Amino acid sequence: MAKEPKPIDDLTIWDDAKAMIKKAREEGIETVHERLAQQTPHCKFCELGTTCRNCTMGPCRISKKMPRGVCGADADVVVARNFGRFVAGGSAGHSDHGRDLIEVLEAIVEGETKDYSIKDEEKLIRIAAEVGIETEGRGIMDVARDAMECFFADFGSRKKEVSFLARVPQKRKDIWAKLGMTPRGVDREIAEMMHRTHMGCDNDAPNTMLHAARTSLSDGWGGSMIGTELSDVIFGTPTPSMSTANLGVIKEDKVNILVHGHNPVVSEMILAAAREPELIAEAKEQGAAGINIAGLCCTGNELLMRQGIPMAGNHLMTELALITGAVEAIVVDYQCIMPSLVQISGCYHTKFIDTANKARFTGGIHYDFKPATAMEQAREIVRLAIKGYAERDAGRVDIPCEPVEIMTGFSNEAIIGALGGTLDPLVQAIANGDIRGAVGIVGCNNPKIKQDSMNVKLAEELIKKDILVLVTGCVTTAAGKAGLLVPDAIEKAGPGLKKICGSLGIPPVLHYGSCVDNSRILQLCAALANALDVDISDLPVGASSPEWYSEKAAAIGLYAVASGIYTHLGHPPNILGSETVTNLAVSGLEDLVGATFFIEPDMVKTAEMFDDRIKAKRKALGLSE
Amino acid sequence: MAKEPKPIDDLTIWDDAKAMIKKAREEGIETVHERLAQQTPHCKFCELGTTCRNCTMGPCRISKKMPRGVCGADADVVVARNFGRFVAGGSAGHSDHGRDLIEVLEAIVEGETKDYSIKDEEKLIRIAAEVGIETEGRGIMDVARDAMECFFADFGSRKKEVSFLARVPQKRKDIWAKLGMTPRGVDREIAEMMHRTHMGCDNDAPNTMLHAARTSLSDGWGGSMIGTELSDVIFGTPTPSMSTANLGVIKEDKVNILVHGHNPVVSEMILAAAREPELIAEAKEQGAAGINIAGLCCTGNELLMRQGIPMAGNHLMTELALITGAVEAIVVDYQCIMPSLVQISGCYHTKFIDTANKARFTGGIHYDFKPATAMEQAREIVRLAIKGYAERDAGRVDIPCEPVEIMTGFSNEAIIGALGGTLDPLVQAIANGDIRGAVGIVGCNNPKIKQDSMNVKLAEELIKKDILVLVTGCVTTAAGKAGLLVPDAIEKAGPGLKKICGSLGIPPVLHYGSCVDNSRILQLCAALANALDVDISDLPVGASSPEWYSEKAAAIGLYAVASGIYTHLGHPPNILGSETVTNLAVSGLEDLVGATFFIEPDMVKTAEMFDDRIKAKRKALGLSE
Repeated sequence: MAKEPKPIDDLTIWDDAKAMIKKAREEGIETVHERLAQQTPHCKFCELGTTCRNCTMGPCRISKKMPRGVCGADADVVVARNFGRFVAGGSAGHSDHGRDLIEVLEAIVEGETKDYSIKDEEKLIRIAAEVGIETEGRGIMDVARDAMECFFADFGSRKKEVSFLARVPQKRKDIWAKLGMTPRGVDREIAEMMHRTHMGCDNDAPNTMLHAARTSLSDGWGGSMIGTELSDVIFGTPTPSMSTANLGVIKEDKVNILVHGHNPVVSEMILAAAREPELIAEAKEQGAAGINIAGLCCTGNELLMRQGIPMAGNHLMTELALITGAVEAIVVDYQCIMPSLVQISGCYHTKFIDTANKARFTGGIHYDFKPATAMEQAREIVRLAIKGYAERDAGRVDIPCEPVEIMTGFSNEAIIGALGGTLDPLVQAIANGDIRGAVGIVGCNNPKIKQDSMNVKLAEELIKKDILVLVTGCVTTAAGKAGLLVPDAIEKAGPGLKKICGSLGIPPVLHYGSCVDNSRILQLCAALANALDVDISDLPVGASSPEWYSEKAAAIGLYAVASGIYTHLGHPPNILGSETVTNLAVSGLEDLVGATFFIEPDMVKTAEMFDDRIKAKRKALGLSE
Repeated sequence: MAKEPKPIDDLTIWDDAKAMIKKAREEGIETVHERLAQQTPHCKFCELGTTCRNCTMGPCRISKKMPRGVCGADADVVVARNFGRFVAGGSAGHSDHGRDLIEVLEAIVEGETKDYSIKDEEKLIRIAAEVGIETEGRGIMDVARDAMECFFADFGSRKKEVSFLARVPQKRKDIWAKLGMTPRGVDREIAEMMHRTHMGCDNDAPNTMLHAARTSLSDGWGGSMIGTELSDVIFGTPTPSMSTANLGVIKEDKVNILVHGHNPVVSEMILAAAREPELIAEAKEQGAAGINIAGLCCTGNELLMRQGIPMAGNHLMTELALITGAVEAIVVDYQCIMPSLVQISGCYHTKFIDTANKARFTGGIHYDFKPATAMEQAREIVRLAIKGYAERDAGRVDIPCEPVEIMTGFSNEAIIGALGGTLDPLVQAIANGDIRGAVGIVGCNNPKIKQDSMNVKLAEELIKKDILVLVTGCVTTAAGKAGLLVPDAIEKAGPGLKKICGSLGIPPVLHYGSCVDNSRILQLCAALANALDVDISDLPVGASSPEWYSEKAAAIGLYAVASGIYTHLGHPPNILGSETVTNLAVSGLEDLVGATFFIEPDMVKTAEMFDDRIKAKRKALGLSE
C-alpha cells in the first residue's frame, strides 16, 4: 500500500540533499518525502479550507451538496474562520518568541542572570527613544527596565496601538484606523481571533479577514519586531561578515552540534559553551579536533547573522543533516522542528535535546532552559554531545560536499552604516533607477515543491531586472548555496545593481536575518516611505514566499500586504473553498490597503509581475520605469 | 440526495420545540436538524481528532495506514494539538467577554458613559479587597480604577498568577505549581497554546494537555470569573426571584424582542430602553400592547438572573423561537448565535441585529455598540423592532404553549444571605448527609442528542439521591421547562434535600447563571474547601455537561477537572484518535489533579457514577456515605 515518493531528482535542486535522501533510503530511514507521498492525495475539504471542527455539532464539510454546516455557516464563514486561526497560530509563534526575549531582558534588569547582558547599549537607547521612553542622562538599566515594561505592555490590553507603530507612516496608520485594523496588543488580537472564530461569533468573512490582518500586524510591528530588536540589544546588532553554508559545514573530525529552531536565547549559550577552552579540551580528549556548531532553520539564521556561525541547511535539510551520521547532538528550541527528528536521531548516535517547556518532544532529552542557569545548562548539553562523539559509527558517516561561501549580517543599522549614516544614497539609487526596486524573499521549504527551485529562481530573475533582493529565513540558505550571497554574484545582476553593489562590495541578494527579522524589512520600508513622505504602498517594493509551509509565513504575508506591500505566494493557503475570501486576498485588499496577494507557481512570471508592479509604482512616484 | 432528518419526536423532549419544527417543515424553513442530517456521517478523521491543518505541507490525516503526518507528528501529537486549540477557542470566547466588562468599567471610571454605573458598590469593594486592593476609606471610583487595572493585568504577561487565585485553596495551587499549570495571564496562555500547536513546537501530547489545562484555568479563575464579578458590580448581584420559561414567553399582542448571545452589556440597555414610557407609547401607537423582552441562550441567563426577564429558550430553541413568526427583532451580541438565524429572520418580518464588531453577520443590521452611546443605540434598536410590528403576518404566528414558572437568581451572595451570612449551615447539611453532595450541570444542546433529554434526566436522577444540582447556561431552560426550578420540585427530591430546600423555600435545582457564571460554582467549591481545610478534589462534588457542543464547554470541563472536580461529558470531544490523550483525560489526570473526565451517554448510569464518587469522597472526609 505504501505510495512511492518522487524520484530524488524531482525533490530538490541540491546535490547534498540528493546524496542524503539516497543514503536515507538505503538505510531504510523515512523522511518527509516518504510521509508526503503517504499523505497524498490530501483531503480536498481541508485543502479548500471548508472543513470546520470548531464545535461538536460537527465536524462539518461544506460543498455544493452541503452548502452549510450544522450551525448554518457557509463556505465563506468556514474558510475565514480557518484562515483566521491559521494566522493567529503564526502570529502567536513569532510573538511568543518575542516575549521570551523580553523575559531575558527582565532577567538582566532584575539581576537574575549573569549569562546574558546588554550587548548593544546604543541600540537599546535608540529604540527606547523611538517608543517614547526618556533616555537622556539615564542609566542603561533604568532605560532597559522601562523598555521591558513597554514591550510587555505591547502584549496586553491597555494600549491603543503597539509601540513600534511609531515607525509607521501616518498615511498607513490612518488606513488601519479607518478599517479597525490598528493592532492594539499582540496577545489580545490573537485571543480575539480565537473568540471571533468560535461558533456564533464573527459570521462575516470580510470582517474576520480584517481581524486576521490586524492580528498579523500585531505580529509584524509588535511581537516579531520586539523579538528582532531585543535580540540585537542582547546579542549584538548584526554587521556584515563571511560564513559558509550547506551540509559540508558539518565536520567529520569534530564534535558536531546542530542548533535548530528560532530563538537565539539557547543557541547563543550553546555557542559560548562550545568556545570554552575546557570543553574544547574535553572534546580533544575524546579524539575530536574540536567542537563545531552549525545552524539549521532560523536559529541558524540568528547565529549566522550575529556570530557568523555556518548554516547546515534550511527546513528540508533538517532531517538530512542527521543522515550524515556525523551529528552528535541536535539542540532545539521551538517552531518548525519536525517531530521526526527524534526518530531519525534514534537511528544514529545523535542526541535530540529539547530546551523549552513549551516545545517538548516525546523521546527527547529535556532541559528546562532558564536565563538564570543558561551557561551551566549549555555546558551540560555540550558535554553530552562530546560524550556522544565516541558513539559515532564512522562507517555510517557521509558528509556529501564542501561548503560554499556566503556573506551575512545585513541589519538596517549595517546598511545605513555602509551608506555613510543615512538612507539617502539608497533613496538616490532607487530614484535614479540603479536599484529599480526591492523584493524580500522569505519563508520556508515545502516538500510539495522541488526544494529551493523557486527560492533560487525568483532571486535570480529579480536581480537581473535590477531589483534588489533581501532574503530571510529558509531562503537564506537557498540563496547562499546558489552563490547569490557573495559580492561576486553581481555578475548575475542587471547593470544598475551591479554598479551599486559592486561599489559597496556587497551581494545583490542581502541576508536580512531570520523569519522574525522580516520586521527589519518592514522597518526599512517604513523608513524609505517616511524619507519620501509617501505611504509604504507607494514604494517600488514587494514580498514573496515561494515555498512557504508555515502558519508564520501566512502571518508574515498578511502583515506585508496589510502594510501595503504587494506579496507573492508560490501556492495558496487553504482558502480556495471561498470565492469571497479568495477574491478579497487576491484583489479586494488592493482597494482597502493598497496591496494584495498574488499566487503564481512560475517564477519567471512572478518576476515579471513584480517588474510590472515596480514599473507602475515608479511611474506614480515620477521616476523612470 | 437530501438526507432525511430524524422524526420530530426523536429530536426533542419539548412540545413547544416539536410544534415549531413541524411548522418550520411545513413552511419549508431549514433548521439545524436538516443541516445535521445533511452533514451526517461526519468525517471520521475529524471526529477522531486526527486531521491536522496547521501547515501547508499537509493537510494530513493520521491512521494505522498513515501513522505520521508529513512533519512526523503521530496521532497523539495531532489530537493534542487540535484539542489544545479547541480549548483555547473556548477560553478566548469567555475571557474576551470578561475583558469587555472591564472595558465598560473603564468607561464608567473615565466618565465616558452615563448609561452604565456601579450598581453593587459593596461587591466591588469586597472583590477588590480579595485581590489585594486597598479599599479602606477610599472613594468607590478610586477602588474601581485599581480593580480595572488589576483585571486588565490578568490578561497580560506581568503576573505570576491571575488575581482570583487568591480564592483557591493552597493545596490546589501547590498542585498547579508543581505541574506548571498555574495560570499567569489569560491572553498569554491562549497565545502560548497557539504557539505550542504550531508545527515543530510541542510534540509531547501530555505536555500539550497540561498547557490546555492551564489555559482553561486562566478562563475559569480568570476571564470568566472577571466577567461574572464585574457583571454583578455593573448590573447588580442576582437575588432570588420568579420568572417564566419556554416559547410561551413570546407574546402575541406585544412587540417581541429576543436578546441572544452571552454578554449583558447590550441586552441590559435594550431592556432599559424597552421599559421607557416613550418607547412603550410608540409600541402602543403601532397597535401593540407593549414591548416584551425575552432571552435566549446566555444573554437570556444574564437578564434572567438579575432582572427576572423570561427565557424563551436554550441553544436548540433559538431558531425555533423565530419560527413562531411573532418576533420583531432578535438582537445578538456574540457566541453560539447560529448564522442560520439571519436566513430564518429573512423568512419572516424579523430584524436580525448584530451589535459587536467582533461578531458581525453577513445580512444582519449592524450597530457598533459602545458604552458611550449605549442607551441611544438601544433606543434605535427598540424603535426598529417597534416599526417591525406592523410588518408581522398574523396568519403565520403560532406561539405553541403557556410559559412555566421558574425560580432564578442564586448567586453565592444570595445563598450565603439565605443561610444567614455564612456557609456553615450548608457545610452542616453536607456533613450530616441531608445534602450528600452537589453537581453542576452546565452547557449546551447538541442536535445529535434528543434535546434536553439528558439535561433533565440527570438533574432528576441526582436530586433523588439527595445531591443538590446547580444549573447554568442552556441547562437552565431545560431544568426550568421540566419544572425543576421551583420550590415544589422538592417532591422529586430525596428526603434530605426535600427537608433542607423545603425549609429554605428553594428548589432542589438552583439556577446559578450563565456559562461564564460557572465561575460562581468554582468559587463556591473553593469556599467550601477552605471552610473544611481540604482541597477541592476532596469535596463530594461533580460537574456535568451532558449535551455540550461548544469549545467553551470543553474549556469549562477542563478547568473543572483541573480544579479537582470529577466531570461528566455526555459525549467525548474529538480526541478518541489518540489513546494517550484519551487515557489521560479519562484516567491519567486523576493522579495529577485528583479528578478526571468520564464519558457516559446513559444518565441513570451517570447519576450512579456521581453517587459512587460522592460516597467515596464523603467516606474519605469521615462522613456518612
